[in-house]
Amino acid sequence: MIRVFHISLLLIPILLLTSIQLYPQWEQLRYESLRIENGLPANQSFALCQDSKGFLWIGSRNGLTRYDGYEFRGYSHDPSDNMSLSANKVKVIFEDRTRNLWIGTTNGLNKYNNATETFLRYYYNPDDLHSIGGNNITAIFEDNNGDIWIGTEGGGLNRYDRINEEFVRYQNEPDNPSSISSNYITSICQDGDKNLWVGLYGKGVDKYVIPENQFINYQYSKEDNRSLSSNLVTMVYEDSFGNIWIGTEDQALNRYDKENNEFIRINYNPDNPESLNSYRVVTIIQDQNNYLFVGTTKGLNIFDPLNRQFYKYNCNKYDSLTTLGYCNAIAEDESGLIWIGTDAEGLKKLDTRINFYHYTNFSGSRIAVFSFCEENENEIWIGTGRIGLILFNLNTENSIHFRKDPNDPSSISENLITKVCKDKSGDLWVGTFGQGLNKLIPNEKDIRFSSFLNYTFNPYDSFSLSSNNVWDIFEDSYGILWIATLGGGLNRAIKDKDNNISKFVRYKSNSEDVTSISSNKVLSIYEDKSKNLWMGTEDGGLNKYVREKDNFISYQHDPGNMNSISSNYVFSVYEDESRNFWVATDAGLSKYDRSSGIFEHYSKKDGLPDEIIYRIEEDSKGNLWLSTNNGLSKFNPQTETFKNFDISDGLQSNEFDTGASFKNKKGQMFFGGINGFNLFHPDSIKENTHIPPVVITDFKLNNISVPIGLDTATNRIILELSITETKELKLDHDDKVISFEFAALDFHIPEKNKYAYKMEGFDDNWSYTDAGRRLITYTNLDPGDYTFIVKGSNNDGFWNEEGVSISIIINPPWWATTWAYFVYALIIISIIYLTWKMQLRR
Amino acid sequence: MIRVFHISLLLIPILLLTSIQLYPQWEQLRYESLRIENGLPANQSFALCQDSKGFLWIGSRNGLTRYDGYEFRGYSHDPSDNMSLSANKVKVIFEDRTRNLWIGTTNGLNKYNNATETFLRYYYNPDDLHSIGGNNITAIFEDNNGDIWIGTEGGGLNRYDRINEEFVRYQNEPDNPSSISSNYITSICQDGDKNLWVGLYGKGVDKYVIPENQFINYQYSKEDNRSLSSNLVTMVYEDSFGNIWIGTEDQALNRYDKENNEFIRINYNPDNPESLNSYRVVTIIQDQNNYLFVGTTKGLNIFDPLNRQFYKYNCNKYDSLTTLGYCNAIAEDESGLIWIGTDAEGLKKLDTRINFYHYTNFSGSRIAVFSFCEENENEIWIGTGRIGLILFNLNTENSIHFRKDPNDPSSISENLITKVCKDKSGDLWVGTFGQGLNKLIPNEKDIRFSSFLNYTFNPYDSFSLSSNNVWDIFEDSYGILWIATLGGGLNRAIKDKDNNISKFVRYKSNSEDVTSISSNKVLSIYEDKSKNLWMGTEDGGLNKYVREKDNFISYQHDPGNMNSISSNYVFSVYEDESRNFWVATDAGLSKYDRSSGIFEHYSKKDGLPDEIIYRIEEDSKGNLWLSTNNGLSKFNPQTETFKNFDISDGLQSNEFDTGASFKNKKGQMFFGGINGFNLFHPDSIKENTHIPPVVITDFKLNNISVPIGLDTATNRIILELSITETKELKLDHDDKVISFEFAALDFHIPEKNKYAYKMEGFDDNWSYTDAGRRLITYTNLDPGDYTFIVKGSNNDGFWNEEGVSISIIINPPWWATTWAYFVYALIIISIIYLTWKMQLRR
Repeated sequence: MIRVFHISLLLIPILLLTSIQLYPQWEQLRYESLRIENGLPANQSFALCQDSKGFLWIGSRNGLTRYDGYEFRGYSHDPSDNMSLSANKVKVIFEDRTRNLWIGTTNGLNKYNNATETFLRYYYNPDDLHSIGGNNITAIFEDNNGDIWIGTEGGGLNRYDRINEEFVRYQNEPDNPSSISSNYITSICQDGDKNLWVGLYGKGVDKYVIPENQFINYQYSKEDNRSLSSNLVTMVYEDSFGNIWIGTEDQALNRYDKENNEFIRINYNPDNPESLNSYRVVTIIQDQNNYLFVGTTKGLNIFDPLNRQFYKYNCNKYDSLTTLGYCNAIAEDESGLIWIGTDAEGLKKLDTRINFYHYTNFSGSRIAVFSFCEENENEIWIGTGRIGLILFNLNTENSIHFRKDPNDPSSISENLITKVCKDKSGDLWVGTFGQGLNKLIPNEKDIRFSSFLNYTFNPYDSFSLSSNNVWDIFEDSYGILWIATLGGGLNRAIKDKDNNISKFVRYKSNSEDVTSISSNKVLSIYEDKSKNLWMGTEDGGLNKYVREKDNFISYQHDPGNMNSISSNYVFSVYEDESRNFWVATDAGLSKYDRSSGIFEHYSKKDGLPDEIIYRIEEDSKGNLWLSTNNGLSKFNPQTETFKNFDISDGLQSNEFDTGASFKNKKGQMFFGGINGFNLFHPDSIKENTHIPPVVITDFKLNNISVPIGLDTATNRIILELSITETKELKLDHDDKVISFEFAALDFHIPEKNKYAYKMEGFDDNWSYTDAGRRLITYTNLDPGDYTFIVKGSNNDGFWNEEGVSISIIINPPWWATTWAYFVYALIIISIIYLTWKMQLRR
Repeated sequence: MIRVFHISLLLIPILLLTSIQLYPQWEQLRYESLRIENGLPANQSFALCQDSKGFLWIGSRNGLTRYDGYEFRGYSHDPSDNMSLSANKVKVIFEDRTRNLWIGTTNGLNKYNNATETFLRYYYNPDDLHSIGGNNITAIFEDNNGDIWIGTEGGGLNRYDRINEEFVRYQNEPDNPSSISSNYITSICQDGDKNLWVGLYGKGVDKYVIPENQFINYQYSKEDNRSLSSNLVTMVYEDSFGNIWIGTEDQALNRYDKENNEFIRINYNPDNPESLNSYRVVTIIQDQNNYLFVGTTKGLNIFDPLNRQFYKYNCNKYDSLTTLGYCNAIAEDESGLIWIGTDAEGLKKLDTRINFYHYTNFSGSRIAVFSFCEENENEIWIGTGRIGLILFNLNTENSIHFRKDPNDPSSISENLITKVCKDKSGDLWVGTFGQGLNKLIPNEKDIRFSSFLNYTFNPYDSFSLSSNNVWDIFEDSYGILWIATLGGGLNRAIKDKDNNISKFVRYKSNSEDVTSISSNKVLSIYEDKSKNLWMGTEDGGLNKYVREKDNFISYQHDPGNMNSISSNYVFSVYEDESRNFWVATDAGLSKYDRSSGIFEHYSKKDGLPDEIIYRIEEDSKGNLWLSTNNGLSKFNPQTETFKNFDISDGLQSNEFDTGASFKNKKGQMFFGGINGFNLFHPDSIKENTHIPPVVITDFKLNNISVPIGLDTATNRIILELSITETKELKLDHDDKVISFEFAALDFHIPEKNKYAYKMEGFDDNWSYTDAGRRLITYTNLDPGDYTFIVKGSNNDGFWNEEGVSISIIINPPWWATTWAYFVYALIIISIIYLTWKMQLRR
């Protein structure tokens, strides 16, 4: 488990802007793993780079691969093809300003040719002084001049001369103190003064003053604790504030203080929670928000420049098996996602946006949350499905458990808690499934030692609780406590002066009496603004309690009347600020017009994610948040639109629980389900606004991908360039079946990216694809000119309206070309001429 | 964790047939979960039924759904459509012999109309004696006469009169002892004497003798322990042996002994491992192999009729969180998969075939396995990546751990074990990464108290081990022990008379000497049948040790020579029984012809699942089993074909480990990887031979699904029936874009099902789809007659060659119809006639 310290200092600007929102908590950072099973060539990767088109490139133990959000396109070493990658262990990937992609492997440097999808290899050649100095590539960097610097293991530093396409070597000359201090380069960066910093394995770091062609060495000195912490330098990195960070293999991290020309050491100290999580720093990057990510052998250390504090992060705080572990490479993509290449755990994708917080682990196991009740601003009572009652502190994440102790009659009567309710007197009432109602008798000294008073069904006492299966507890505006049971109908509690219950008045269903409650299985109790009480039932529809007459009016489903309630299974009701009355059933959401008596229905057809609606909460903008059996839905009653969220957005599960929702005074919402609960402020649910580039990723003819160059299926060249680079396609009239594959390069939730496409010249309208469908086929297009256009959106519906287009020219058959018509004309003219000639002769 | 008792008695016929194969182990049963997140409408389901077309129907808490292996098509209650399902809580699904699908809900019975995808509802009507007796349906059963019996909660038993489409009620008449004993029916079955057995909640079970119209009641009797164990009967079921099984809610299970007219009770007793796992039986079915599956609140009890023994099964033996739990319904599909509808954990799919066994949990945590070595037939030494050396008993699954104890110098020197090797003297040698070589000094009394002798690198002793990073240990046919290290080259051990090593002779790489070993990073050592020793290295290719000269010949990758070895990263080599020599590299598999010196390469292009090949084992049929970084591959060198296996086939992961493979004398193979190891006998890897039915599941016009009946987009009726039922489609010439979606109904690994399709009249050849692609579009077809045919295969390539076809008639435009041509002719004739007339008149 990763702890966050000084949370309140973390994100000062955000706090100032929206103080009611949640504090960001790094441990709540959402991540996803991509592994071999997902198509990654190896779980071990060393290098990451997003190119200017938007593709993510991954250098792995098992070749280079390009990710488009759906598929990994692999490039590997092929001994029979010298345009293939020079080796399969890819250590560095770098795109220069002219959009060349450089790939460094353990055996050779490669320049990738986008247009032909081939590689130009550069090898060390002992006979050629202008070849690169070594084959084991460790670092590639472009300086402010556009010069490309390549570091090698053993072959020193190399500068690539673009004009002559050759290399200038910088190698250690033992007799020249101005030469580089070692030939084992690990990393290269440049400072604000345009000096290069070169990390050296075993020799500290060199600062290279380019105009003077002088390398200045910095090393560890035993005597000077302002010297570099170690000579085994693994990483040098300049952040946006101009700090140079130097990571080492055995003595953690250094920050170079330019003014004093000294190094500030950031240590690894297992006993100091504010130090790094490992002595071995592997990689460093800074993201758009200026957070510094320091990858080590034990996950991430995230540095907040505002409070100058490191936070440890290792993915899953609940499951030690699915950790981040050893980080080899970190990169940020255009949309702000952080990507981490690990040594054994695949590729990790982190989303640093604040979103739905998820609490699931209260005692080492997954729990279902059935009910919430606020104790105070920081503490909340949670009724669970298995492990009793919990008092949970939202700040410390500490919890106090109240479980049934079979040997202690004053313990809580049951561990399946269906409802927790605090009445106006401050007493806490706890409903259980199977063991009746409990009242908490707080221990004033220590809440942990509190006891419970239990009320149960007694067959010999008609004033006892009507059933031990309590499902809801509600105190109305008159201060009357109502208890709904599953099987025993409704109870009204009569309290004594100590606020204990002296007797229960039962309301049970009676099929002979239409004014009785319509079912004994009562699921919820609600009071509207006119102080009417409403009860949802499991098989008797909705009931309104008529206070004056002490009886009920029921609203039941009539299969013949579509304006009746949609189902007799009513989970809950809610009256919104505009006094609309909403009913949540197992057949969707309904708006009940209390004046006309008409129920208006919303179902999956209208945009709901599910028919089963459990609970309704309203935010300050009038949106209704609905918990369902298939995710959470934000419903705007004005526009009648639904925005649906699911487990991929950070929900605890798609399945929520019957009675589990709560909104506190800050406007934060709590929704519980089968895997814990989500806590969020509706205003903090931010959308992903990154407009994704759209690319065409494949072209198929007769359902077979067409290669660049000679297509052996048709024995002609169809694609001279990669389809992604192709602007115009020339096809024959008998190229009957053509298909395009495309991708919108936003990686948040690629399966939620959407597409619209159109073949101008054939389609009149845009077609929208179903989720995940990215291959479009046209057959039998007539000869002519067409343009295929595809637009794409990200997961939150932000569209790249321009999209990408490709023009397609389908040539007519030879007998229908202009040339053929010219020949026809010539023949006809010849015939006329000959006929005329013959006539003349006659 | 679920234990299996008397394993050896379990499957006698299989044992007799193939005694060398593995014993089936129920706890190794492979399962998969389908949950809300996968499209299931609810994690709670009550009913399962595969229809005669092959679709799987699931009755859930949230409507009815149809599964085709890819998608769930939901049917729910729509208050505004009385042809929709009568309620969303579906309790029973049953297909009768006339292929009607009956759906019982908590509020009404439904008959599904396949052709129109609508429901005919049957409700209880107090005014109609011929209506069904109650709305809460609990059981549906068809007797041998084809009569359909419907059980209800409260409304008694009902027989459906097909001819008059009405119901005959059988209800309790208190004064008639021949009447049914209760109106609360839970289950119905029929015995071999054609009597119906009716489970009654609270009243035991009734046997209904149909011709005599008499119900005979059986109940629990306190005095008679041969009476039914409880009156709360939940399930009655007749197995293929004629046994009637009666499950109860509080007293487990009964088997009815017809001869003695008494009940044999099978109890729940937590202290007796051979009893059931719960007192509450929910459902019972028997599969094709005559195993009886008894679902309870705590998973399955599988009854083996041969040894009359119950085995408990609850899904994941390693993870208590992902259990089966409460089973509501069990069904077997045509292919033999067992489906379980659970109360809270979604739908589970069990594959009962014996396949790859997976061992992963040796001390409560996931481990990587690096090496195997056999101690005896039942015990195997396992070198792990994190938790030291393990002696694992394959029968008992017990393991003995040897870990490093920093305080005990005689403990194993390191927990990262790279190699375990037993020499001819019986001594065990253990290689570690970082701490050299160990020799086990066994404690004769108790192996657990054995100690280790450690050999490490000593910079001052040139006869010490050359590096502490041992990677392989090998004893050659001369009895010489060789130790490969990562960084220190190769070592030859010189032993003393106690079989201890007195010194190491080092073989190190020397760039000045071409006869030295080509790299100091040696990965593997192998001896071929001609007693040549071969070494694979990390960056120096392959080496052959020349014994006579005590030096090496190396084989390295030459980018200019495609007959050279494919990479310098060589993991291992293997000589097969036909004396072919195979080389596993990080750039595929190569066959080395030792006479011509030519390397022939196999890569992903040829069918390999990956370029990184770790290890090679040969089975008795001459197939090579290759462990890779992306699954296991079975290679037939004769046909040069690969059959690939991945995690969905039961592999520990797709990622295997470098040195981890072993074949024992029985022919069983062991392959280790990052998540434990797989054990299997190559002969027991059976294929799925179920030929799947193929169905068309959707038809789209202009990319929009066409509804049955009026299509509002085109304002005409295109589909009169469901597309799945449609044989002929009539379209217009301007229906430009048409698409078909299809599915092969085999559920083993649907994403591995394959498809071929063809539009006869347009396509000349069959097209094969990529994995998972099931939507095919045609645009711009010319008027004419076509037939769309689609064939499908299951995951193992067993094809339904007939497939499914649909004829398509595309009508020409009005001006190109026969009728139009007739009109044209008429006009021309009229003109000619009129002209002639006019001429006549002149």
